[in-house]
Amino acid sequence: MSTVLSIPASSQPLTIGMLLYPGFTLLDLAGPQAALGLHGRTLLFWKTLEQVPTDSGISVNPTHTFADAPDALDVLFVPGGMGTNEAMLDPEVVEFLARLGQRARYVTSVCTGSLLLGMAGLLDGYRAATHWAAYEALEALGVTSAPDRVVADRNRITGGGGTAGIDFGLTLLAELRGDDVAKITQLLMEYDPHPPFNTGHPRVAGELLTQAARAALGEDLILNITKIASARHTRIEI
Amino acid sequence: MSTVLSIPASSQPLTIGMLLYPGFTLLDLAGPQAALGLHGRTLLFWKTLEQVPTDSGISVNPTHTFADAPDALDVLFVPGGMGTNEAMLDPEVVEFLARLGQRARYVTSVCTGSLLLGMAGLLDGYRAATHWAAYEALEALGVTSAPDRVVADRNRITGGGGTAGIDFGLTLLAELRGDDVAKITQLLMEYDPHPPFNTGHPRVAGELLTQAARAALGEDLILNITKIASARHTRIEI
Repeated sequence: MSTVLSIPASSQPLTIGMLLYPGFTLLDLAGPQAALGLHGRTLLFWKTLEQVPTDSGISVNPTHTFADAPDALDVLFVPGGMGTNEAMLDPEVVEFLARLGQRARYVTSVCTGSLLLGMAGLLDGYRAATHWAAYEALEALGVTSAPDRVVADRNRITGGGGTAGIDFGLTLLAELRGDDVAKITQLLMEYDPHPPFNTGHPRVAGELLTQAARAALGEDLILNITKIASARHTRIEI
Repeated sequence: MSTVLSIPASSQPLTIGMLLYPGFTLLDLAGPQAALGLHGRTLLFWKTLEQVPTDSGISVNPTHTFADAPDALDVLFVPGGMGTNEAMLDPEVVEFLARLGQRARYVTSVCTGSLLLGMAGLLDGYRAATHWAAYEALEALGVTSAPDRVVADRNRITGGGGTAGIDFGLTLLAELRGDDVAKITQLLMEYDPHPPFNTGHPRVAGELLTQAARAALGEDLILNITKIASARHTRIEI
């Protein structure tokens, strides 16, 4: 076996810090964590060490409080979820991200996690991805929203909605550890997708399905998150 | 908007029971849960209500003990992970699955979770999927191993390695709720995959990468899980 193709055990393990918050989506975090976590240590941050509920009845346990979070992260990561809107209004969360984001090697997110990065000012002057229902909210934060699966703009690497976290994680891993390591990791994760339908983005799903999906999310939620995003500049400029 | 394309809120919510065990892979559970969990209630089973560590430093909290698990599940689901081998040797886990599997409407798994179903006798006479590194172990259990992304054989629906859980979850959802609901859910999850490489299965990754991935998993682990699987029949027949 070529040594080029082994996962070099001698590499410095990555330090990956992930934000938890009530109502995050488990898959948003699990996808990137599966790709990156094999190559380092995953730290999970919340205000306390109490369990944090996801948006679907599962709860996950933080490993570090905001106060105990180490400064030097290879990757700062923020998942999205139905609770993003409330987290955007929580100054403790936004200030924590702003503080860690200044020092992390990569500042990253999946899904509506980019709205939290934007709220913390970490995407000012950057292009970023988000869930398709949140393009408008991201623009309202003053961030250039790109309808892409993964967007890399200098050290800001962001993924689209939910499942984009797997593509995001492997893309970031390739940048951190090289293509061979990312290819082996993709094989370990058996990431050879066969979606049962071709409806994963409004671009391919069409108008009718997109309307139904927006209704399932709730138009109020979508409006509300855009309103919260718009208020960022109001508050800062006043 | 056509009412045909809305997610019918009046449907009876699904009851989805998922096994936790030390060393399961978070993504194996998070993928299916993202697809199915939107349409019902997710119950997480373990011996106690103590937190259960995944195979990557994250821990998740059970909602029910084995003793408290309800009989009537729409879906019984088992994730895979680096801890599958130990769970296969745990009679309490195997007997719990055998008991619930007899009554669940669908008996399902992703990745090496099918080895646990097989150990519980729930795949005798069925075709099933598993992680590519575990085809041999599944055969050793007396189960017909299929190298497919998702395998449906009567009410046994099983997915391949890790990321196959998303394809599995949406496939099962289509069976339970119809294609329209599954299509909308795929759109909500933005499941429009763009893998950075084409190396997600030995079939496409080739020999060299597959050898490297096997080495990263550990040949000992692969051998050991096959040995545990082979011992099932020895124990039962003696």
